[in-house]
Amino acid sequence: MTVTLLHHTPLEIADKAISKCWAKETCKPKERMYRVANKYKHSSTIEHINYSFDIDGVSRALLQELSRHRMASLSVKSTRYTLKELKTYDSDVEDFLVPTGNSYIDSANRLQLATLKWALKDDVSNDLVKYMLPEAYKTSLVWTINMRSLQNFIKLRTNKSALWEIRELAYAVYAELPKEHQFMLIDYVEEREDEQV
Amino acid sequence: MTVTLLHHTPLEIADKAISKCWAKETCKPKERMYRVANKYKHSSTIEHINYSFDIDGVSRALLQELSRHRMASLSVKSTRYTLKELKTYDSDVEDFLVPTGNSYIDSANRLQLATLKWALKDDVSNDLVKYMLPEAYKTSLVWTINMRSLQNFIKLRTNKSALWEIRELAYAVYAELPKEHQFMLIDYVEEREDEQV
Amino acid sequence: MTVTLLHHTPLEIADKAISKCWAKETCKPKERMYRVANKYKHSSTIEHINYSFDIDGVSRALLQELSRHRMASLSVKSTRYTLKELKTYDSDVEDFLVPTGNSYIDSANRLQLATLKWALKDDVSNDLVKYMLPEAYKTSLVWTINMRSLQNFIKLRTNKSALWEIRELAYAVYAELPKEHQFMLIDYVEEREDEQV
Amino acid sequence: MTVTLLHHTPLEIADKAISKCWAKETCKPKERMYRVANKYKHSSTIEHINYSFDIDGVSRALLQELSRHRMASLSVKSTRYTLKELKTYDSDVEDFLVPTGNSYIDSANRLQLATLKWALKDDVSNDLVKYMLPEAYKTSLVWTINMRSLQNFIKLRTNKSALWEIRELAYAVYAELPKEHQFMLIDYVEEREDEQV
Repeated sequence: MTVTLLHHTPLEIADKAISKCWAKETCKPKERMYRVANKYKHSSTIEHINYSFDIDGVSRALLQELSRHRMASLSVKSTRYTLKELKTYDSDVEDFLVPTGNSYIDSANRLQLATLKWALKDDVSNDLVKYMLPEAYKTSLVWTINMRSLQNFIKLRTNKSALWEIRELAYAVYAELPKEHQFMLIDYVEEREDEQV
Repeated sequence: MTVTLLHHTPLEIADKAISKCWAKETCKPKERMYRVANKYKHSSTIEHINYSFDIDGVSRALLQELSRHRMASLSVKSTRYTLKELKTYDSDVEDFLVPTGNSYIDSANRLQLATLKWALKDDVSNDLVKYMLPEAYKTSLVWTINMRSLQNFIKLRTNKSALWEIRELAYAVYAELPKEHQFMLIDYVEEREDEQV
Repeated sequence: MTVTLLHHTPLEIADKAISKCWAKETCKPKERMYRVANKYKHSSTIEHINYSFDIDGVSRALLQELSRHRMASLSVKSTRYTLKELKTYDSDVEDFLVPTGNSYIDSANRLQLATLKWALKDDVSNDLVKYMLPEAYKTSLVWTINMRSLQNFIKLRTNKSALWEIRELAYAVYAELPKEHQFMLIDYVEEREDEQV
Repeated sequence: MTVTLLHHTPLEIADKAISKCWAKETCKPKERMYRVANKYKHSSTIEHINYSFDIDGVSRALLQELSRHRMASLSVKSTRYTLKELKTYDSDVEDFLVPTGNSYIDSANRLQLATLKWALKDDVSNDLVKYMLPEAYKTSLVWTINMRSLQNFIKLRTNKSALWEIRELAYAVYAELPKEHQFMLIDYVEEREDEQV
């Protein structure tokens, strides 16, 4: 998977918002932001900060979970389009699949995709063929989420009980944040064992 | 697919709401509701009407689209759980699949599910095995949506360009509505020819 | 203020939803609901439960705060309409005001409303006259909110730092809930001393 | 009123999002964006574009209406804070009021505010005193809204039936948009005659 931060709102905008509501808190901007949003839980003040990510090479299994975060906007590569690409693709179909690391599963998925390709070549409608797609099938999207909603995402999805792939995504998203924004999210990142964040 | 209306708010609640904002409109309740919400587009007045549906036997392909309607609540049967059921299931795996009517696709999916069952019996983790699931795999959910959001759903999903299965769902949902509610939705239902998928 | 519960979704609907996601939790329905939503914080399962309230005789000051709870629907008596009522009202204008208990304030507000009435009688446009309305001016609304969002409302608005009137509302809303629903909200109710506003 | 655009997402982000979903539309970026979002009504693609505005010197009457646009984030100057400013303010209290242009109303509001100032000096609690505030009382906020939601705001609030002050705001917001963004909103702006409020 590749995750690229396309755009972010500068922290100054949240600071401006906080200065409306918390004029009397006279400490430094970042200290005040942390205090107001993370300690006092006046979280609407950080909704002004939005992040847009380009997320590529994640599975439809992950997408099922990602789209359940309703306080976000997502624009997803249409399956109709990728099936058209697949139809004329000359190299190995595995380029269209997120590998699980289990060779039995990965082989079965390659086989399923090869079988699907025959249906495409046979001009079966995309809207039927897509019912064969294994959940490992890759997709791509632009995702916009505000800082408040992202805190919730990071908390739920870096958790050990989260699906491994969305957990990878959550860490990758965190790593892509501007360094000077990370202090607002770090409390929500579940610590990771031996592996490195 | 089976769709069952579990609960709905009576129309009187929206009428009460409308009487707050539109006291001077003195026609009959249903006429006034239609006029205020559908003609004047003061649609927030019909957000007070909620519907809860039990939706069973729809595919994960459909779920991908359904979960994109963010102004709704859904609780979905966990894949982890259904995989456990599948593991010990004695009859044909086709009971776990939404049929597409195309025998090539349906056979490939049955084969994929049988292959997946071996991985389960081999104690491969559910979180890897699920990457093999074809999008035809069945799921089940409770879905709650208000009348305003449902109008939008019905409009988009009875449209001819919608995926055939979610189109079926949209008509089934409409048919399950209390008869006395349908006048508020009927304008959003795209007319259906005898056409077959 | 008077608060009347107009309609509520029965608990069974949330139980049905929870049984989709948490089939293995085999305890009694209410115990399971409490555990899943309040302890495990899988709060989307209780979004299926909606409450509609008729709320009458609250101030525009309260309305400013209430409308900030965005995960809810509200239909408010239009000021244009109540100004028309006021124009021809024969009794004391104080019937249009939420009393604060401070006689200085209450008198000033009565005077302001009497002054406003002259402007109305002089056929000044409602859209200008409304700029004279004191925040104590009474309004009336229908409010629909789901159990998840209500937990958040109850928590924030029974808090000692909340505005006295919305605090009254939060307790009144809680008291109006069906008795068998209150166990899901009680943890969010801040204990109240005998203190008077 | 003063309206200042504090930040906006560049159009490229929406174009990137659209290229995911509408790869086959091969026209120029702005033409494609207009076609996809405004003509085909695939409006979620423009949710990636966010605008943050500093809005100053608007009335509490306007705020009542603004906060009803739930798909937006707002951080408002606290009344508690502005009452503290008012208490020690030496110049004319009219600086705290949005003028209506009607001298009768404006005088009554100045009188009400002067009366209120006495209550403040007498140490009556802010939470009671605020019940005297006329709706003309000025406030200030930071407002963040995405392009999709802004289209709806512009459409509803430039309409002739909208309250004059929020209508002013809607035009001011539109005028503050980056020139190269306006083509996406212009269809939603109601034409304005020379008419005066």
